[in-house]
Amino acid sequence: MKDIAFVLYPGFTVLDMVGPLQVLSALPAFAPEYRVVVLGEGKSPVPTDTPLGVLASHTFDEVPEPYAVFLPGGTVPTITAMADEQLLARIRSMAEHAEIVGSVCTGSLILGAAGLLEGRRATTHWMCRDLLAKFGATPVAERWVRDGKVLTGAGVSAGIDLALHLVQELAGEEIARQVQLMIEYDPQPPLGGIDWTEVDIAARRPLLDGWLHAGLADHPKLLSELIGS
Amino acid sequence: MKDIAFVLYPGFTVLDMVGPLQVLSALPAFAPEYRVVVLGEGKSPVPTDTPLGVLASHTFDEVPEPYAVFLPGGTVPTITAMADEQLLARIRSMAEHAEIVGSVCTGSLILGAAGLLEGRRATTHWMCRDLLAKFGATPVAERWVRDGKVLTGAGVSAGIDLALHLVQELAGEEIARQVQLMIEYDPQPPLGGIDWTEVDIAARRPLLDGWLHAGLADHPKLLSELIGS
Repeated sequence: MKDIAFVLYPGFTVLDMVGPLQVLSALPAFAPEYRVVVLGEGKSPVPTDTPLGVLASHTFDEVPEPYAVFLPGGTVPTITAMADEQLLARIRSMAEHAEIVGSVCTGSLILGAAGLLEGRRATTHWMCRDLLAKFGATPVAERWVRDGKVLTGAGVSAGIDLALHLVQELAGEEIARQVQLMIEYDPQPPLGGIDWTEVDIAARRPLLDGWLHAGLADHPKLLSELIGS
Repeated sequence: MKDIAFVLYPGFTVLDMVGPLQVLSALPAFAPEYRVVVLGEGKSPVPTDTPLGVLASHTFDEVPEPYAVFLPGGTVPTITAMADEQLLARIRSMAEHAEIVGSVCTGSLILGAAGLLEGRRATTHWMCRDLLAKFGATPVAERWVRDGKVLTGAGVSAGIDLALHLVQELAGEEIARQVQLMIEYDPQPPLGGIDWTEVDIAARRPLLDGWLHAGLADHPKLLSELIGS
Protein backbone atom coordinates (compact mmCIF):
# COMPACT_ATOMS: atom_id res chain seq x y z
CA MET A 1 0.00 0.00 0.00
CA LYS A 2 1.30 3.45 -0.95
CA ASP A 3 -0.07 6.04 1.45
CA ILE A 4 -0.57 9.60 0.29
CA ALA A 5 -0.64 11.57 3.54
CA PHE A 6 -1.88 15.08 4.32
CA VAL A 7 -0.64 16.63 7.56
CA LEU A 8 -2.95 18.55 9.90
CA TYR A 9 -1.85 21.31 12.26
CA PRO A 10 -4.01 23.91 14.01
CA GLY A 11 -5.15 26.91 12.00
CA PHE A 12 -4.01 25.77 8.55
CA THR A 13 -5.76 27.01 5.40
CA VAL A 14 -8.34 24.33 4.72
CA LEU A 15 -8.52 24.69 0.92
CA ASP A 16 -4.73 24.10 0.71
CA MET A 17 -5.45 20.57 1.87
CA VAL A 18 -8.94 19.88 0.57
CA GLY A 19 -8.16 20.78 -3.05
CA PRO A 20 -5.48 18.10 -3.49
CA LEU A 21 -7.20 15.78 -1.00
CA GLN A 22 -10.34 15.72 -3.16
CA VAL A 23 -8.34 15.13 -6.33
CA LEU A 24 -6.08 12.44 -4.91
CA SER A 25 -8.95 10.68 -3.10
CA ALA A 26 -10.22 9.76 -6.57
CA LEU A 27 -6.97 7.95 -7.39
CA PRO A 28 -7.49 4.63 -5.50
CA ALA A 29 -10.59 3.82 -7.59
CA PHE A 30 -8.30 3.70 -10.62
CA ALA A 31 -5.02 2.68 -8.93
CA PRO A 32 -5.87 0.59 -5.84
CA GLU A 33 -2.25 0.47 -4.65
CA TYR A 34 -2.74 4.02 -3.33
CA ARG A 35 -4.51 5.02 -0.13
CA VAL A 36 -5.16 8.57 1.02
CA VAL A 37 -4.86 9.44 4.71
CA VAL A 38 -5.03 12.59 6.82
CA LEU A 39 -2.51 12.59 9.65
CA GLY A 40 -2.42 14.35 13.00
CA GLU A 41 -0.84 13.85 16.42
CA GLY A 42 -4.24 12.59 17.55
CA LYS A 43 -7.76 12.32 16.23
CA SER A 44 -9.39 15.14 18.14
CA PRO A 45 -10.79 18.17 16.31
CA VAL A 46 -8.29 20.55 14.71
CA PRO A 47 -9.32 24.13 13.92
CA THR A 48 -8.74 25.55 10.44
CA ASP A 49 -8.56 29.17 9.26
CA THR A 50 -12.32 28.97 8.59
CA PRO A 51 -15.22 28.05 10.91
CA LEU A 52 -14.86 24.41 9.79
CA GLY A 53 -13.15 22.05 12.22
CA VAL A 54 -11.47 18.91 10.88
CA LEU A 55 -10.26 15.51 12.09
CA ALA A 56 -7.40 13.28 11.04
CA SER A 57 -8.14 9.79 9.78
CA HIS A 58 -4.91 8.43 11.29
CA THR A 59 -2.24 9.44 13.78
CA PHE A 60 1.38 9.97 12.74
CA ASP A 61 2.23 6.79 14.65
CA GLU A 62 -0.26 4.78 12.62
CA VAL A 63 1.28 5.79 9.27
CA PRO A 64 4.98 6.38 9.96
CA GLU A 65 6.25 5.84 6.42
CA PRO A 66 3.86 7.27 3.81
CA TYR A 67 4.69 7.15 0.13
CA ALA A 68 3.92 10.87 -0.16
CA VAL A 69 3.50 13.58 2.46
CA PHE A 70 1.87 16.98 1.90
CA LEU A 71 1.90 20.07 4.09
CA PRO A 72 -0.85 22.67 3.72
CA GLY A 73 -0.05 26.31 4.38
CA GLY A 74 -1.71 29.20 6.12
CA THR A 75 -0.93 32.55 7.68
CA VAL A 76 0.23 33.05 11.31
CA PRO A 77 -0.46 29.43 12.36
CA THR A 78 1.84 28.16 9.61
CA ILE A 79 4.61 30.50 10.74
CA THR A 80 4.09 29.17 14.28
CA ALA A 81 4.30 25.59 12.96
CA MET A 82 7.75 26.40 11.48
CA ALA A 83 9.08 26.42 15.06
CA ASP A 84 7.17 23.34 16.26
CA GLU A 85 10.08 20.92 16.78
CA GLN A 86 7.78 17.95 17.35
CA LEU A 87 6.00 18.56 14.03
CA LEU A 88 9.30 19.18 12.22
CA ALA A 89 10.71 15.91 13.56
CA ARG A 90 7.60 14.06 12.29
CA ILE A 91 7.99 15.63 8.87
CA ARG A 92 11.73 14.91 8.62
CA SER A 93 11.13 11.30 9.60
CA MET A 94 8.37 10.85 7.01
CA ALA A 95 10.37 12.71 4.35
CA GLU A 96 13.30 10.36 4.78
CA HIS A 97 11.26 7.41 3.55
CA ALA A 98 8.78 9.19 1.26
CA GLU A 99 9.03 9.24 -2.51
CA ILE A 100 7.24 12.58 -2.63
CA VAL A 101 7.55 15.45 -0.14
CA GLY A 102 5.07 18.11 -1.02
CA SER A 103 3.39 21.32 0.03
CA VAL A 104 0.72 23.76 -1.00
CA CYS A 105 1.03 27.50 -0.40
CA THR A 106 3.13 28.42 2.66
CA GLY A 107 3.31 24.74 3.63
CA SER A 108 6.68 24.99 1.85
CA LEU A 109 7.91 27.23 4.68
CA ILE A 110 7.42 24.31 7.08
CA LEU A 111 9.33 22.03 4.69
CA GLY A 112 12.03 24.71 4.59
CA ALA A 113 12.16 24.98 8.39
CA ALA A 114 12.54 21.19 8.50
CA GLY A 115 15.60 21.54 6.27
CA LEU A 116 13.99 19.77 3.32
CA LEU A 117 14.31 22.51 0.67
CA GLU A 118 18.11 22.89 0.75
CA GLY A 119 19.33 23.11 -2.85
CA ARG A 120 15.84 22.60 -4.28
CA ARG A 121 13.82 24.68 -6.72
CA ALA A 122 10.55 25.39 -4.92
CA THR A 123 7.49 27.62 -4.88
CA THR A 124 4.96 28.92 -2.36
CA HIS A 125 2.30 31.63 -2.02
CA TRP A 126 3.42 34.63 -4.10
CA MET A 127 3.66 36.87 -1.00
CA CYS A 128 6.28 34.60 0.60
CA ARG A 129 8.31 33.49 -2.39
CA ASP A 130 11.52 35.31 -1.45
CA LEU A 131 11.53 33.66 1.99
CA LEU A 132 12.32 30.30 0.40
CA ALA A 133 15.89 31.47 -0.25
CA LYS A 134 16.41 31.65 3.54
CA PHE A 135 16.17 27.85 3.56
CA GLY A 136 18.69 27.35 0.77
CA ALA A 137 15.99 26.89 -1.88
CA THR A 138 15.74 28.57 -5.26
CA PRO A 139 12.34 30.32 -5.38
CA VAL A 140 10.44 29.74 -8.61
CA ALA A 141 7.30 31.57 -9.80
CA GLU A 142 5.43 28.57 -11.17
CA ARG A 143 2.07 26.96 -10.37
CA TRP A 144 3.89 23.88 -9.09
CA VAL A 145 7.53 22.80 -9.07
CA ARG A 146 8.99 19.31 -8.98
CA ASP A 147 12.65 18.99 -7.96
CA GLY A 148 13.59 15.42 -7.16
CA LYS A 149 11.25 14.18 -4.46
CA VAL A 150 10.11 17.71 -3.57
CA LEU A 151 6.83 18.89 -5.13
CA THR A 152 5.74 22.37 -4.03
CA GLY A 153 2.70 24.33 -5.12
CA ALA A 154 1.84 28.02 -5.27
CA GLY A 155 -0.87 29.65 -3.12
CA VAL A 156 -4.02 27.88 -1.87
CA SER A 157 -5.95 26.98 -5.05
CA ALA A 158 -2.74 25.82 -6.78
CA GLY A 159 -3.06 22.57 -4.85
CA ILE A 160 -5.75 21.43 -7.29
CA ASP A 161 -3.46 21.90 -10.29
CA LEU A 162 -0.55 20.27 -8.44
CA ALA A 163 -2.66 17.25 -7.52
CA LEU A 164 -4.01 16.75 -11.03
CA HIS A 165 -0.42 16.87 -12.26
CA LEU A 166 0.48 14.24 -9.68
CA VAL A 167 -2.41 11.98 -10.72
CA GLN A 168 -1.15 12.24 -14.27
CA GLU A 169 2.37 11.38 -13.11
CA LEU A 170 1.22 8.39 -11.03
CA ALA A 171 -1.61 7.02 -13.17
CA GLY A 172 -1.42 8.61 -16.60
CA GLU A 173 -3.16 11.28 -18.62
CA GLU A 174 -6.43 9.42 -19.20
CA ILE A 175 -7.09 8.93 -15.49
CA ALA A 176 -6.09 12.53 -14.75
CA ARG A 177 -8.70 13.63 -17.31
CA GLN A 178 -11.34 11.40 -15.68
CA VAL A 179 -10.64 12.91 -12.25
CA GLN A 180 -10.70 16.42 -13.68
CA LEU A 181 -14.07 15.69 -15.31
CA MET A 182 -15.59 14.27 -12.13
CA ILE A 183 -14.66 17.39 -10.14
CA GLU A 184 -15.76 19.46 -13.16
CA TYR A 185 -12.51 21.40 -13.06
CA ASP A 186 -13.10 23.73 -15.98
CA PRO A 187 -12.30 26.94 -14.13
CA GLN A 188 -14.04 30.19 -15.01
CA PRO A 189 -12.80 32.86 -12.59
CA PRO A 190 -15.54 35.50 -12.82
CA LEU A 191 -13.00 38.31 -13.24
CA GLY A 192 -10.54 36.25 -15.28
CA GLY A 193 -7.09 35.10 -14.15
CA ILE A 194 -4.70 37.17 -12.06
CA ASP A 195 -2.90 40.01 -13.85
CA TRP A 196 0.52 39.67 -12.23
CA THR A 197 1.74 42.94 -13.73
CA GLU A 198 -0.73 44.64 -11.36
CA VAL A 199 0.45 42.79 -8.24
CA ASP A 200 2.86 44.67 -6.00
CA ILE A 201 4.60 41.99 -3.93
CA ALA A 202 6.80 44.49 -2.04
CA ALA A 203 3.68 46.35 -0.88
CA ARG A 204 2.52 43.19 0.93
CA ARG A 205 5.80 42.69 2.78
CA PRO A 206 4.54 44.53 5.89
CA LEU A 207 1.61 42.09 6.07
CA LEU A 208 4.00 39.15 5.80
CA ASP A 209 6.32 40.67 8.39
CA GLY A 210 3.34 41.00 10.71
CA TRP A 211 2.61 37.28 10.31
CA LEU A 212 6.27 36.45 10.99
CA HIS A 213 6.39 38.60 14.14
CA ALA A 214 3.08 37.18 15.41
CA GLY A 215 3.97 33.57 14.64
CA LEU A 216 7.55 33.63 15.90
CA ALA A 217 7.26 35.93 18.91
CA ASP A 218 8.74 33.15 21.06
CA HIS A 219 11.46 32.26 18.53
CA PRO A 220 13.55 35.42 18.07
CA LYS A 221 16.47 33.61 16.43
CA LEU A 222 14.38 32.13 13.62
CA LEU A 223 12.47 35.41 13.33
CA SER A 224 15.64 37.43 12.85
CA GLU A 225 16.94 34.93 10.30
CA LEU A 226 13.77 35.34 8.28
CA ILE A 227 13.26 39.08 8.70
CA GLY A 228 16.92 40.06 8.33
CA SER A 229 18.24 40.88 4.87
CA MET B 1 -25.17 40.19 11.39
CA LYS B 2 -25.67 38.45 8.03
CA ASP B 3 -24.78 34.78 8.36
CA ILE B 4 -23.53 32.86 5.35
CA ALA B 5 -24.22 29.24 6.27
CA PHE B 6 -22.86 26.00 4.84
CA VAL B 7 -24.83 22.85 5.65
CA LEU B 8 -23.12 19.59 6.67
CA TYR B 9 -24.53 16.13 6.11
CA PRO B 10 -22.72 12.77 6.21
CA GLY B 11 -20.65 11.77 3.20
CA PHE B 12 -20.84 15.05 1.26
CA THR B 13 -18.07 16.03 -1.19
CA VAL B 14 -15.76 18.13 0.92
CA LEU B 15 -14.39 20.38 -1.85
CA ASP B 16 -17.97 21.40 -2.75
CA MET B 17 -18.06 23.14 0.61
CA VAL B 18 -14.45 24.09 1.24
CA GLY B 19 -13.98 25.95 -2.06
CA PRO B 20 -16.70 28.53 -1.40
CA LEU B 21 -16.11 28.37 2.38
CA GLN B 22 -12.49 29.47 1.90
CA VAL B 23 -13.48 32.26 -0.48
CA LEU B 24 -16.38 33.57 1.61
CA SER B 25 -14.43 33.32 4.88
CA ALA B 26 -12.28 36.15 3.50
CA LEU B 27 -15.33 38.42 3.17
CA PRO B 28 -15.83 39.54 6.81
CA ALA B 29 -12.35 41.15 6.88
CA PHE B 30 -13.61 43.55 4.20
CA ALA B 31 -17.33 43.56 5.02
CA PRO B 32 -17.74 42.95 8.78
CA GLU B 33 -21.53 42.69 8.57
CA TYR B 34 -21.05 39.13 7.27
CA ARG B 35 -20.24 36.06 9.32
CA VAL B 36 -19.53 32.59 7.93
CA VAL B 37 -20.84 29.52 9.78
CA VAL B 38 -20.92 25.79 9.17
CA LEU B 39 -24.18 24.19 10.33
CA GLY B 40 -25.07 20.69 11.42
CA GLU B 41 -27.66 18.96 13.59
CA GLY B 42 -24.94 18.71 16.23
CA LYS B 43 -21.25 19.39 16.60
CA SER B 44 -19.93 15.85 16.50
CA PRO B 45 -17.69 14.66 13.66
CA VAL B 46 -19.29 14.27 10.24
CA PRO B 47 -17.64 12.05 7.62
CA THR B 48 -16.97 13.39 4.13
CA ASP B 49 -16.34 11.53 0.87
CA THR B 50 -12.60 11.68 1.68
CA PRO B 51 -10.68 10.46 4.77
CA LEU B 52 -11.12 13.92 6.31
CA GLY B 53 -13.75 14.25 9.03
CA VAL B 54 -15.31 17.65 9.69
CA LEU B 55 -17.23 19.49 12.41
CA ALA B 56 -19.89 22.18 12.31
CA SER B 57 -19.24 25.50 14.01
CA HIS B 58 -22.92 25.88 14.96
CA THR B 59 -26.07 23.80 15.15
CA PHE B 60 -29.11 24.55 13.00
CA ASP B 61 -30.87 25.70 16.13
CA GLU B 62 -28.16 28.24 16.86
CA VAL B 63 -28.47 29.91 13.44
CA PRO B 64 -32.11 29.46 12.39
CA GLU B 65 -32.28 32.38 9.95
CA PRO B 66 -29.07 32.77 7.95
CA TYR B 67 -28.74 35.41 5.27
CA ALA B 68 -27.47 32.77 2.84
CA VAL B 69 -27.55 28.98 2.94
CA PHE B 70 -25.42 26.66 0.79
CA LEU B 71 -25.75 22.92 0.21
CA PRO B 72 -22.72 20.93 -0.93
CA GLY B 73 -23.23 17.91 -3.15
CA GLY B 74 -21.82 14.42 -3.40
CA THR B 75 -22.66 11.00 -4.80
CA VAL B 76 -24.79 8.36 -3.01
CA PRO B 77 -24.89 10.24 0.33
CA THR B 78 -26.39 13.28 -1.41
CA ILE B 79 -29.06 11.12 -3.03
CA THR B 80 -29.81 9.70 0.43
CA ALA B 81 -30.04 13.23 1.83
CA MET B 82 -32.74 14.03 -0.75
CA ALA B 83 -35.09 11.80 1.27
CA ASP B 84 -34.03 13.04 4.73
CA GLU B 85 -37.22 14.83 5.79
CA GLN B 86 -35.58 16.35 8.87
CA LEU B 87 -32.82 17.90 6.74
CA LEU B 88 -35.31 19.05 4.08
CA ALA B 89 -37.45 20.73 6.75
CA ARG B 90 -34.36 22.57 8.06
CA ILE B 91 -33.50 23.75 4.58
CA ARG B 92 -37.03 24.88 3.75
CA SER B 93 -37.19 26.81 6.99
CA MET B 94 -33.86 28.54 6.38
CA ALA B 95 -34.72 29.19 2.71
CA GLU B 96 -37.91 30.97 3.68
CA HIS B 97 -35.96 33.73 5.42
CA ALA B 98 -32.71 33.64 3.45
CA GLU B 99 -31.80 36.15 0.75
CA ILE B 100 -29.65 33.55 -1.01
CA VAL B 101 -30.36 29.83 -1.31
CA GLY B 102 -27.41 28.14 -2.93
CA SER B 103 -25.77 24.88 -3.85
CA VAL B 104 -22.63 23.45 -5.35
CA CYS B 105 -22.66 20.34 -7.53
CA THR B 106 -25.46 17.87 -6.69
CA GLY B 107 -26.37 19.97 -3.65
CA SER B 108 -28.98 21.36 -6.05
CA LEU B 109 -30.75 17.98 -5.99
CA ILE B 110 -31.36 18.48 -2.26
CA LEU B 111 -32.72 21.97 -2.96
CA GLY B 112 -34.91 20.37 -5.62
CA ALA B 113 -36.15 17.68 -3.25
CA ALA B 114 -37.00 20.44 -0.77
CA GLY B 115 -39.19 22.05 -3.45
CA LEU B 116 -36.98 25.11 -3.80
CA LEU B 117 -36.15 24.90 -7.51
CA GLU B 118 -39.72 25.01 -8.87
CA GLY B 119 -39.74 27.38 -11.84
CA ARG B 120 -36.07 28.32 -11.42
CA ARG B 121 -33.16 28.15 -13.84
CA ALA B 122 -30.53 26.05 -12.11
CA THR B 123 -27.39 24.01 -12.63
CA THR B 124 -25.60 21.07 -11.02
CA HIS B 125 -22.86 18.52 -11.78
CA TRP B 126 -22.92 17.84 -15.53
CA MET B 127 -23.82 14.16 -14.98
CA CYS B 128 -27.05 15.08 -13.18
CA ARG B 129 -28.19 18.12 -15.09
CA ASP B 130 -31.30 16.55 -16.64
CA LEU B 131 -32.57 15.47 -13.21
CA LEU B 132 -33.23 19.10 -12.30
CA ALA B 133 -36.26 19.10 -14.60
CA LYS B 134 -37.86 16.51 -12.29
CA PHE B 135 -38.13 19.26 -9.67
CA GLY B 136 -39.71 21.79 -12.01
CA ALA B 137 -36.42 23.55 -12.69
CA THR B 138 -34.95 24.56 -16.04
CA PRO B 139 -31.50 22.94 -16.27
CA VAL B 140 -28.78 25.29 -17.48
CA ALA B 141 -25.24 24.36 -18.56
CA GLU B 142 -23.41 27.26 -16.92
CA ARG B 143 -20.67 27.50 -14.28
CA TRP B 144 -23.16 29.13 -11.92
CA VAL B 145 -26.73 30.36 -12.29
CA ARG B 146 -28.56 33.02 -10.34
CA ASP B 147 -32.36 33.03 -10.54
CA GLY B 148 -33.92 35.23 -7.91
CA LYS B 149 -32.69 34.07 -4.53
CA VAL B 150 -31.47 30.74 -5.92
CA LEU B 151 -27.74 30.52 -6.78
CA THR B 152 -26.63 27.09 -8.02
CA GLY B 153 -23.18 26.02 -9.15
CA ALA B 154 -21.88 23.29 -11.44
CA GLY B 155 -19.78 20.36 -10.23
CA VAL B 156 -17.39 20.43 -7.25
CA SER B 157 -14.71 22.97 -8.22
CA ALA B 158 -17.35 25.36 -9.61
CA GLY B 159 -18.04 26.44 -6.03
CA ILE B 160 -14.88 28.57 -6.11
CA ASP B 161 -16.08 30.49 -9.16
CA LEU B 162 -19.59 30.82 -7.71
CA ALA B 163 -18.24 32.17 -4.42
CA LEU B 164 -15.95 34.72 -6.08
CA HIS B 165 -18.96 35.88 -8.08
CA LEU B 166 -20.92 36.21 -4.85
CA VAL B 167 -18.13 38.22 -3.18
CA GLN B 168 -18.21 40.55 -6.15
CA GLU B 169 -21.98 40.83 -5.86
CA LEU B 170 -21.91 41.51 -2.10
CA ALA B 171 -18.75 43.60 -1.78
CA GLY B 172 -17.67 44.73 -5.24
CA GLU B 173 -15.10 43.91 -7.86
CA GLU B 174 -12.04 45.27 -6.03
CA ILE B 175 -12.62 43.07 -2.97
CA ALA B 176 -13.36 40.04 -5.17
CA ARG B 177 -9.98 40.63 -6.84
CA GLN B 178 -8.25 40.86 -3.44
CA VAL B 179 -9.78 37.57 -2.32
CA GLN B 180 -8.86 35.91 -5.61
CA LEU B 181 -5.27 37.13 -5.22
CA MET B 182 -4.98 35.88 -1.63
CA ILE B 183 -6.09 32.37 -2.65
CA GLU B 184 -3.88 32.72 -5.76
CA TYR B 185 -6.74 31.62 -7.96
CA ASP B 186 -5.01 31.78 -11.32
CA PRO B 187 -5.94 28.28 -12.44
CA GLN B 188 -3.65 26.27 -14.68
CA PRO B 189 -5.24 22.84 -15.20
CA PRO B 190 -2.25 20.71 -16.27
CA LEU B 191 -4.18 19.23 -19.21
CA GLY B 192 -6.14 22.40 -19.97
CA GLY B 193 -9.88 22.93 -19.47
CA ILE B 194 -12.52 20.29 -20.16
CA ASP B 195 -13.33 19.62 -23.82
CA TRP B 196 -17.11 19.19 -23.53
CA THR B 197 -17.40 17.93 -27.10
CA GLU B 198 -15.58 14.81 -25.87
CA VAL B 199 -17.88 14.23 -22.87
CA ASP B 200 -20.62 11.64 -23.33
CA ILE B 201 -23.21 12.44 -20.68
CA ALA B 202 -25.57 9.61 -21.72
CA ALA B 203 -22.75 7.09 -21.21
CA ARG B 204 -22.58 8.07 -17.52
CA ARG B 205 -26.29 7.59 -16.94
CA PRO B 206 -25.82 4.01 -15.64
CA LEU B 207 -23.39 5.36 -13.01
CA LEU B 208 -25.93 7.99 -11.96
CA ASP B 209 -28.74 5.42 -11.92
CA GLY B 210 -26.57 3.27 -9.67
CA TRP B 211 -26.23 6.17 -7.23
CA LEU B 212 -30.00 6.78 -7.33
CA HIS B 213 -30.79 3.11 -6.64
CA ALA B 214 -28.24 2.93 -3.82
CA GLY B 215 -29.25 6.21 -2.22
CA LEU B 216 -33.02 5.76 -2.50
CA ALA B 217 -33.38 2.02 -1.88
CA ASP B 218 -35.78 2.82 0.99
CA HIS B 219 -37.68 5.47 -0.96
CA PRO B 220 -39.12 3.71 -4.02
CA LYS B 221 -41.62 6.47 -4.83
CA LEU B 222 -38.97 9.18 -5.13
CA LEU B 223 -36.68 6.73 -6.92
CA SER B 224 -39.27 5.94 -9.57
CA GLU B 225 -40.05 9.65 -10.03
CA LEU B 226 -36.38 10.31 -10.72
CA ILE B 227 -35.59 7.21 -12.77
CA GLY B 228 -38.79 7.18 -14.79
CA SER B 229 -38.89 9.04 -18.09
